[in-house]
Amino acid sequence: MDLPTAPAVVEAIKRRAEGDLGYPTWLDDSGCGALAEAFAERMAHRYSWSPDPGHVRTFSDINQALQVILHLATRPGDGVALHTPAYHPFLGTLEVMGRPLRPIRLVPDDGDSWRYELPDLSGCRVLLLVNPQNPTGRVFTRQELEELAEHAERHDLLVISDEIHADLAYAPNQHIPFATILPERTVTLTSATKAFNLGGIRCSVAHVGSPAVRAALAAEPPFVYGSAHVFGVEATIAAWRDGDAWLEETLALLDRNRKTIAARLPEGVAYRVPQATYLAWLDYGRPGMAEVLEREARVLLNDGAAFGPGGENHVRLNFATTEPVLGEILDRLRQAR
Amino acid sequence: MDLPTAPAVVEAIKRRAEGDLGYPTWLDDSGCGALAEAFAERMAHRYSWSPDPGHVRTFSDINQALQVILHLATRPGDGVALHTPAYHPFLGTLEVMGRPLRPIRLVPDDGDSWRYELPDLSGCRVLLLVNPQNPTGRVFTRQELEELAEHAERHDLLVISDEIHADLAYAPNQHIPFATILPERTVTLTSATKAFNLGGIRCSVAHVGSPAVRAALAAEPPFVYGSAHVFGVEATIAAWRDGDAWLEETLALLDRNRKTIAARLPEGVAYRVPQATYLAWLDYGRPGMAEVLEREARVLLNDGAAFGPGGENHVRLNFATTEPVLGEILDRLRQAR
Repeated sequence: MDLPTAPAVVEAIKRRAEGDLGYPTWLDDSGCGALAEAFAERMAHRYSWSPDPGHVRTFSDINQALQVILHLATRPGDGVALHTPAYHPFLGTLEVMGRPLRPIRLVPDDGDSWRYELPDLSGCRVLLLVNPQNPTGRVFTRQELEELAEHAERHDLLVISDEIHADLAYAPNQHIPFATILPERTVTLTSATKAFNLGGIRCSVAHVGSPAVRAALAAEPPFVYGSAHVFGVEATIAAWRDGDAWLEETLALLDRNRKTIAARLPEGVAYRVPQATYLAWLDYGRPGMAEVLEREARVLLNDGAAFGPGGENHVRLNFATTEPVLGEILDRLRQAR
Repeated sequence: MDLPTAPAVVEAIKRRAEGDLGYPTWLDDSGCGALAEAFAERMAHRYSWSPDPGHVRTFSDINQALQVILHLATRPGDGVALHTPAYHPFLGTLEVMGRPLRPIRLVPDDGDSWRYELPDLSGCRVLLLVNPQNPTGRVFTRQELEELAEHAERHDLLVISDEIHADLAYAPNQHIPFATILPERTVTLTSATKAFNLGGIRCSVAHVGSPAVRAALAAEPPFVYGSAHVFGVEATIAAWRDGDAWLEETLALLDRNRKTIAARLPEGVAYRVPQATYLAWLDYGRPGMAEVLEREARVLLNDGAAFGPGGENHVRLNFATTEPVLGEILDRLRQAR
């Protein structure tokens, strides 16, 4: 995000900087005590889910968590189902770890959003769910999640559910934690870093509902995946407990921005207003446009080709910026046509 | 340490807290760019060693680094030589990972320090060197390091050299990085967290001189061991580049403290003034004294039994505190006799 950090977070970090930076009291507690509690509290408050804080593990980020869990719970060759177009680092992880992608293609629906076409999931070991979805911004409905759950049960899949964009859902879309549907089959991954723009703190949380994955984690050497640091923990707790006024304001801005894009895109560029996230997934109808637009409009976008099947003709625009900057971006994109 | 943090570190964290906390620019650089540079700079300046910043990897802490490297470079059953008594979490790591300990016993020398008795190292795969040594505070001499190097070569050992206490050596003792002696066989582990009391930031550095270990690390999924965070990197760089005035003052205090202990210990407690570290290794001549002293003197010490062979009759006292508090500790220990 191109926005100042929530004041509650800045204050929490500065307060801690002036205090004790030695070993934290929760060093031997893999859930970091207070962090697991804050996570459970937030899930209950916002999503009517009461996770067990004792099943929380911390990771540097969601990419680490995913790689660790795939490493422990699957083998090379095991298929991983994932909606595509997909968050590109996850595609990279599947590639480098030799877990073949089973794409669940997202396609434009008859209305103004996206639907998916579920393939046969035989041979898959994992459903890697990204909900809200990146890059389309879809917030999956209860009906969709229940359909996915039915397939997960039928094929005995572990569900790794990346819900990092949950706090960025626009009303009336309501995020539903997948763990409320299939608690013992699900590992939920989340973090305050996306909604509160704290990517640099490297602090994320996994709620490991699956007893088998908990056992596999517990069998590893205790420090091999690292441990959370005081600023990550303090910043996350501050964001979750004291950051919601900032978040509400930010969401109001992002809500205006997602609509501004719809009103001011160049003609011929297809765009479905996202139900969550600050990402606009723009269909230019031909490949290679990120490079063209960087050169001609001096606007840096993600090239859709990196997002896998269904991405090639698209670019992804991050609209977590101020209205004047977004206006300038849209002016430049129009002039580049 | 029971001392305020170096002002340069506090300022660096607060400055960063007010700036951008989004993804750092060095996210895809395993050595974190600026951190690797600051490490190389400090090694050159203080220890006449010019490590290659390109061989630097970051970890959460040294315990993580050790477990990762043992995991990648050895197998269960491979012996690990380590001076004992030893930093207790390392003993725990060898136990839990099934790498048998080959103790290199430290024994009182004829003077006022410690010497070691080198066993046959056949069957070992690793020399896990802790230099300066914890808990005895020995700073190994060039002659000793060269002897160890000779054995490392003879038995084809990987040397994992924990040098986290290097900045806490008291003159005229001079720390010598093991990598200056056997560069391609050595993985050096260090961090600013010990000398600058930053245990909570979870940021350490490994210089991987061994090409085989570098290759093994590079073959792993890129995020599986986590990545450094902005505050860890900023705090470490501030400590190393701008913290030496604070360190000098702190070392002067610790130097007085280590001598005060010698002057004021209860009669019959043997103590050899450490050449480095803020740890006093006290021989009470009988086991179980930590429990007794916690109960009777209300002083919390580490029980020597946890430090492995040679530790049983000892306690470890952390003297990184102010002179009045140390005085109170010593008064209490004397009254408990």
